[in-house]
This record gives sequence, C-alpha cells and structure tokens, in this order.
Amino acid sequence: MSSTVARVESPDGDVESSLTNNDPALADAFPEELASWHGYIEWQNYPERRKKAHDILAAYKDKFTPIPEFQLKPLPETNPILVGHRWKEYHAVLGPTLKDIPAESWALVQKEKAADMVHVLDFPYNGEPPRDKLMQGKITPNKYHFVRNHGGIPTIDKAAFRLNIGGLVNKPQTLTLADLQDPNKFEPVEVTVTLQCSGTRRIEQIHEYPGDGDELINAPWGEGAIGTARYRGVSLKKVLKYCGGMKDNARHIEFLGADTYFKKLEVYNYAVSVPRRKVEAVNEVLLAWEMNGEPLPAIHGAPLRMVVTGFIGARSCKWVYQINVLDEPSHGPVQRKEYLYYGPQTGKQNVQFSNGFSIQEMPVSSAIMTPKDREVVVHRGQIEITGWAYSGGGRWIERVDVSADGGHIWYQCKPDDMTEKHYHAWRLWKITLPLHAEGWLELCVRAFDNACNTQPTFVRSTWNWDLHVTSSAHRIKIYSVNASHEDTARRLRELKENGDSLEPITRPLMFHIESDEHYNEMVKKHPREPEE
Amino acid sequence: MSSTVARVESPDGDVESSLTNNDPALADAFPEELASWHGYIEWQNYPERRKKAHDILAAYKDKFTPIPEFQLKPLPETNPILVGHRWKEYHAVLGPTLKDIPAESWALVQKEKAADMVHVLDFPYNGEPPRDKLMQGKITPNKYHFVRNHGGIPTIDKAAFRLNIGGLVNKPQTLTLADLQDPNKFEPVEVTVTLQCSGTRRIEQIHEYPGDGDELINAPWGEGAIGTARYRGVSLKKVLKYCGGMKDNARHIEFLGADTYFKKLEVYNYAVSVPRRKVEAVNEVLLAWEMNGEPLPAIHGAPLRMVVTGFIGARSCKWVYQINVLDEPSHGPVQRKEYLYYGPQTGKQNVQFSNGFSIQEMPVSSAIMTPKDREVVVHRGQIEITGWAYSGGGRWIERVDVSADGGHIWYQCKPDDMTEKHYHAWRLWKITLPLHAEGWLELCVRAFDNACNTQPTFVRSTWNWDLHVTSSAHRIKIYSVNASHEDTARRLRELKENGDSLEPITRPLMFHIESDEHYNEMVKKHPREPEE
Repeated sequence: MSSTVARVESPDGDVESSLTNNDPALADAFPEELASWHGYIEWQNYPERRKKAHDILAAYKDKFTPIPEFQLKPLPETNPILVGHRWKEYHAVLGPTLKDIPAESWALVQKEKAADMVHVLDFPYNGEPPRDKLMQGKITPNKYHFVRNHGGIPTIDKAAFRLNIGGLVNKPQTLTLADLQDPNKFEPVEVTVTLQCSGTRRIEQIHEYPGDGDELINAPWGEGAIGTARYRGVSLKKVLKYCGGMKDNARHIEFLGADTYFKKLEVYNYAVSVPRRKVEAVNEVLLAWEMNGEPLPAIHGAPLRMVVTGFIGARSCKWVYQINVLDEPSHGPVQRKEYLYYGPQTGKQNVQFSNGFSIQEMPVSSAIMTPKDREVVVHRGQIEITGWAYSGGGRWIERVDVSADGGHIWYQCKPDDMTEKHYHAWRLWKITLPLHAEGWLELCVRAFDNACNTQPTFVRSTWNWDLHVTSSAHRIKIYSVNASHEDTARRLRELKENGDSLEPITRPLMFHIESDEHYNEMVKKHPREPEE
Repeated sequence: MSSTVARVESPDGDVESSLTNNDPALADAFPEELASWHGYIEWQNYPERRKKAHDILAAYKDKFTPIPEFQLKPLPETNPILVGHRWKEYHAVLGPTLKDIPAESWALVQKEKAADMVHVLDFPYNGEPPRDKLMQGKITPNKYHFVRNHGGIPTIDKAAFRLNIGGLVNKPQTLTLADLQDPNKFEPVEVTVTLQCSGTRRIEQIHEYPGDGDELINAPWGEGAIGTARYRGVSLKKVLKYCGGMKDNARHIEFLGADTYFKKLEVYNYAVSVPRRKVEAVNEVLLAWEMNGEPLPAIHGAPLRMVVTGFIGARSCKWVYQINVLDEPSHGPVQRKEYLYYGPQTGKQNVQFSNGFSIQEMPVSSAIMTPKDREVVVHRGQIEITGWAYSGGGRWIERVDVSADGGHIWYQCKPDDMTEKHYHAWRLWKITLPLHAEGWLELCVRAFDNACNTQPTFVRSTWNWDLHVTSSAHRIKIYSVNASHEDTARRLRELKENGDSLEPITRPLMFHIESDEHYNEMVKKHPREPEE
C-alpha cells in the first residue's frame, strides 16, 4: 500500500491535510455496486470487502487527522463551523470510488441549499438555516430545510432505482420507483411532517455540560435542526401488505441507505430500524419521493427516502435501497451504538451501550427564534417573541407559554397566533409580552402537547452524555431597553444625536452620563454616609 | 503638533499600533515635578497643564486604538490576556516625560512579579497569581500578590520622598519617610490585611451578563484578585493627630497618588477618599512602607502607600504624596465615577453616576480554588476542596459551607481546617466531602461572617452594570469519576492499559465500550418496546 500526505483545499478555502492511497487494486476492491447508482458501494452483503476496508483504515489509523475537542473551548466563527477532515480521509484512503465523494457532496450542498445556510459540519454535511428563514411559514423551503447526513451523498438514477424488501415478509419483492408511484399498486399519500435531529439545541448542553466526543463530531446544533415539509409517497404499511404481510415474529423494520457510514474503523451502509407497531399505524412511515411538491433533492435522499413521522430524523433513512423485516432492532451502529439516551450519571467513565435506550419518538419541545440570544431589544413596554413548538409520536402542540422573567410569570400564546395543528408537524407561534423591566432578562418558552406533556425546566434536567434531545424550556438572554422610560428615552436621544447606538451593549462608548452639577447636587441630597 | 503612527512591539511580542508626538515643547509642558520622583507629573495643582493635556488628547481622539469589546466573545488565550494599547497611546502623545512609562512599568512587572502571573491587562498593569500559588498559605508572597494599577508605576527615591498633609487639619505638615519611620514620632504597627479588588471574580458576571465597557478596560478578573500581606507602617489616625487633629467639618480624607490617571480625555493624579470614621478607628488606615517584612515593591506603591483595611483595594492609594482632609468625598473620578454599585435595572441606557453608591467596605465572599472549573476529578468516594473566604469592614469569617450538589446539601468546614481569624484578613479553608455521584456536578461555597452575613445565591442576585463585587456563592463544575464504582474502575483500568486518560473529558477516544455479546444479551433481557 503506497500513501502520501497531501495538502488540499477544503471547501471553505482553508488548507487541510489529507491522505491519498494509490494502491491500484482499490478500484476493484470497492466498486460501485450498480450502474447509475453513483457513490453506492454495497458493504452489508460482502463481509470480506468490509474486512479489507477495515484493514486499510486500521493501517492508516495513526495518520488520520485527530478528532477535534471543540466542546470545552469556543466554537470557531467560521462557516463551515467544523471541518470533517477525518471523514474525508476515510474516503480518500479507500481509493478511487470513494475519494471524490466529499467534494461531490459539497458541490451538492452548494447546488441544493441556500447560500446563507449555517454549515455546522461540512462533511458529512450537517447544516441548519438562519433562524429568520425558519420562521417565514409553517412549511420550510427545501433549500432551507436542515440536513444531517451521516456520509456522502449518492446520486442515483431514478430509472435504475430498485428497492428490495426482504426478511420476515411472506413474499419478498423488488420494486422500481415506477412500481411505487403506480396508483394502481399503491395509493399515494401526502403528509405534513416535521423532522428534527435529536441533536437540535445541543449547543445548550455543550455550553453547560460538555458531553460525548464521538468519532463523528457531535454537531453543535442550534435551534434550526428542525424543519417541516409536505412529503408525497406511499405508506410502508401498504407496501409490506403488498409483500404478503409481515410474519408473526416480525418486531423491527430495518432500512438500509446507499450512503457509506464509518464507525470505529469499520465500514457500513447506513442502517436503522423502527418498531412494527409504528409501521402498522396509518401513514406514519412513508416511502417518499417528493418534498414540498418538488422531486426529493439528492441531499435529502433522492430518489427515495423513508419519512418516519414523530421519530428522530435519523430513522428517516435516505437513499433507501433495502428494507428488512427483522425479529429485533437493526444491528447497524447508528441504531445500537448511537442515538442513545443515557442516564444522569452515565459518561465516558462507565458508559455501556446497553445503559442507554434507543431514541425514537421525540418529546415535546420548543424554541424562541426571535429575538436572538444577547440581543439589545429597544421597545416601548412590550416586545414580540416568535418561535416553534413540536411534539413527536403523533402528539400535537396544544399550548405555548412564554416568560420574560426566567420562568416565574408565564403568558400563554393565543390560538390565533399559532399555526394550525397537525398530527406530525410543529406549530409556529408568536406572542406580544408586556415588558417593563430594563437590563438583562431571561426569556423562556415551554410547550404543552395534547397529552399534557410539557418541558423540563433546565438544561441540567435532561442533560445526557451523548447530548441528545435538548428538550428543556428554551432560555435566551436579552438586554431590554424600555424607551418609554424618561431617563432611557433621553439617553437614546443623545446617542442618536452623536450617531452612537447601544449595539453591542458592551461596546465602550464615550457618552455624557451626568453633569457634575447634577451629580454634586444628588450626593449632597443623599450623602453616602450617615450624619451620626 | 506633529504626529506619526508607528508600529512598536508590545510586551507579549505582538505588534501593536502606537502614536508618537514629536512636539518639542512637550518636555517643558509636562515636566516631572520633583527630582528623584521619576514618572510623577503633578496635575492637580496646575489647571492650565491639565487643560493642555486634555487639548492634546482631544486632538488625537480619533487616532487612538478603539477600546475592544471583549465581553460578548471569548477572551484571548494569551498572556497578557488584554493589551492596553489605548492607555499606552495616551502616554505617548503627551511627550517625553510620559511616553516611556508603559515600557518601564512593564519592566517592573518582570522584575517584581513571578513569571507565572496571569497578566489580565498589561498596561495599566492588572495581574493575578495562578490559583495554586494563592493557596500555599495565609500570607501571599509579594511576587504573587495581585496588582490592580490605574496608571504607570512611578519610581521614587526614598530620601527625596515627602508627604504633604493639608486641608481640614489644624496644623498642615510635610513629613519625610524618616519622620514617619521615627518611633519617637509615631509608634509603628504591623497589621495582617487582605486587599481585594472589587472586580474579583468579575469573569462570572461577564459570562452570565456582560456589563460596562468602560474606557479603562474592566479587567476580566478571576478568583485571584485578592491577596494577604502583613504591612508595617503607622496609623493615619496618629499622623492626623500629629497635624493637630481634624477640624469639625472634616468628613472624608483624600489620598493623592503620584501616578497619572486618564478618564474621558482628562488627566489627573490618582485620587480617592475614605470617611472620617474609618480613619478614626484604631489601626484601620495605615501609611505603610513594608510588605511581608520587605520594603514595599515599586509596583505596590513604594516608598509609601495607604492600606485601608476592609475596604476595596482602590482606596489603598499607592505612591501617596498628598493627604487632604475634606468636607466631602474626593472629586477624583475614581471616587465619584467609578467603583459604583448600581441597581439591577441600571445600565448604559439610563445610568447616572448618582444612581450608584460608592463601594468602600467589601461584603462577605469566598471562592473555591481547587479543584478547577471543568476539571475531571477521579476519586474514591470523597474529594478535597480548598479556597478562601473573606469579609470586609473588620468582620471576620466564622463559617464556610461547601456543597457538591449546587447548593442543596451543605457541609461545614471544621475550624481546624481553616486558617486563624484576623479582623482584616481572609481565612483559607479546606474540606473533604463525601462524593458518590458521577458526571458533571456543581460545587459551591458560601461563607458567613461574624455578623451572620452570608452570600447571595446566584450571580444574577448581585449583578450590577459595572460588574463589581461578585459576591454570590462561588460555583464551579467538575466532572466526577468515582473509581470505587465497579464499572468505572474497569474503564479506568482499560484506559490506563491503552495509555489513554479521561482528560479532557470531551476528547474523542476510541475505547472499548461494550462487547456485542453483552449488549445483545442485555437488550434481549430488557427489550426496548413492550411485548404487548
């Protein structure tokens, strides 16, 4: 095996170190599996191939860029925030079929996502929209819908697409996209669905109590790793019926994606599973090819993806090419070794996978989207606050409460100020709060779903080592400036006359604070020390 | 006035922009006042000189380096943390007598302070010791005693030193150092005194709620802006008696320092004052020339400084050359426009000096010094915690309580684990706490003084716009690893065998978490979904 260390340009123009592997045998060792399925290497069916990939990764082990520790220090102010050097190198050392996938995937980000996306990690691509873009309506435009990919983006020709359905079904099938889209075979359905990464709002857990430094960087998500779209497809329930139904011992339905996933120097196709009962519900698990009236974008799983309503996004497998009905959960590492919800005293010193439980349904949660954390808000006695609220598992939001004093006094949003109810989608909300106080205030929000679930109080309440499901009441600090107060109005006028402003609030400013005459008069009237 | 913009090396090797002023008349305009008083320019007695300095500063106003906004973003990881470009430039543009003072002061820092001091601001010099250096004993070694200077360091020949005492005394005097040290005139006293900057632990306020961006950077102090020394000198009370005593209308006693102080383009000698009652108490206000048995270091005010017990450090004027007995507080800006304690809704939008009260006595306060914030603490069921506790105004620490659960269960330090009581000094303390829990824990401390004063609960409780007096219960987070737990012991053994460690806790590590066999056995025994 011959190798060189090269320096190549990363997407953000930063120079990064990378590895190459010039072994001529690699093209044959790791071929693309099917014509017109670019970027799809089959791993699950070839144990020898997986072993060879592992041996190469293990041989390069000490040459890969170390995984950064970014949680105990401030995040870079770059975009992308984090760069996936190591994952790019995994691809590079496995030879010609994989080495260009990171660059191609980045090109698809440029093509399919908005220019102002916040790139949380460039590869595998993780991105969330600027917060105002999320608040423009109930439906998130495709170009602004968050993306949390676990590998490179395969590009698959629709005409060549095949979906295999096997395992514990009575009549295993292979279906084309045309089969799935044939209304004579399957009735098409449209469902409005909010998908949410279980890492949404992770940055709050990181700030308070850093957690797992996983091999795949735990993306420091904000409040934007959530989005809502109207998906068109068919119900998996119907497709399984078409396969003669599930056998009695069926317990979990596994989805395999055409993307390549790395974990601890092993290589896999992306694999997750959902329980039988979820699939048996009406229109809760879809095979979808359309998103908001448009063909599914490549970055979102074209030509076909799973859409599992009310579950964490990770279950909605993209580029799905194989469905296996199993008598137990998938053995894929994403299912068994990630997306686990650990207890309060579990951490690096004692963690075992079996101590956590697999996160499927999302709990009730919400976020304030405007104003922004640490913003100076100049108002005249009331401020408008907006945000989203969501609950998983088919439950919907019934109530949203907002507080401007850290959670002592709460105000309830009016129904007219919330978007309509869906079983599987969020509600956007707004509220106008009376606000007298000035200075730093803590705004917070809590939502209630139709089962009266509400959110825990503090980040601490639900902190967990893998930093998933930040579902506590969302809190931000604003600096309140009440222009209806006389002293404040005067100061604002003076600042304006001088072309100065209060933003940012801590910027040193030479402004007129008080005349010596007034000061001397005041301290004479109210002397500091008692007279006797 | 001719000027050039030059680029000069800053102490930390960083290149900084600076200004020069080549006007040949400046040497005469701003002369040193007395032979062998290097760096002392008299401002208070020469209104015309002050006006000329102001005119020059105002003319350069737009050329000075802008004051940095450092509170809303992470602090630089440099040492010095902050660089006083602007104050160096003030000195530079006032010509030859002042321009070299910043460099000379920095040389004195190198000479008199330990190499491992944390330089919070290089000029005017603000520095605090590494925390372990503060815990080695009740007395802080001079080289590790914190410094909070407001200007450059004058170097004054002892033999040439004169102290003038005037104002509302019956017999104004001029005394030499030999006069003050003459036991026939004044009985020398030694007092153990803790001095504390009112900015101690300011970083906690900055982190939670940023505040004033003053012209002189509000130094982001940690827990080390406090220190204890045994000072030798004479009581000011006796010296004033020697001056025939104070007149009936005396209310405040003003101290003038030989250092030059800048405020909003005006120039001053450092000036502060303390109330008459403070001076009339026994040995509470000293004129000191010795610190821990050594002559006072230049950086601490040689040859003579005030030591005002139980008050904020700012009142213990260094390089004191003039004492004025007044019928009101000093008009110096340090007295009237700084070190003010503002109310909870006072801020940039409405602040007036007369809304704050002048901070003199310090309240009861404390800090945990070991372990460090965000440290991984490996233990076997108990941990040792150490720190300091202090109360101002002649009150002493009676009790120190420590909690390992954020303030729910408290343990009291034993008297044997606290240093002895002093009227005017801190007590160092240690405690061994039982600790079963693992993961992130919040340690906190609260002290009680002899008047049963104790500390407010949260930073929020005492937040104030100028970020003074961070007196809330001090809280740090540690990551607890209890090696007496079986699972944890096993993980620690495995990590050790691989040469790995848990520090930092968030560093991604490839370690063995659980065998597939064990995992599969466990999930079979405790399946995720119910059977029916």
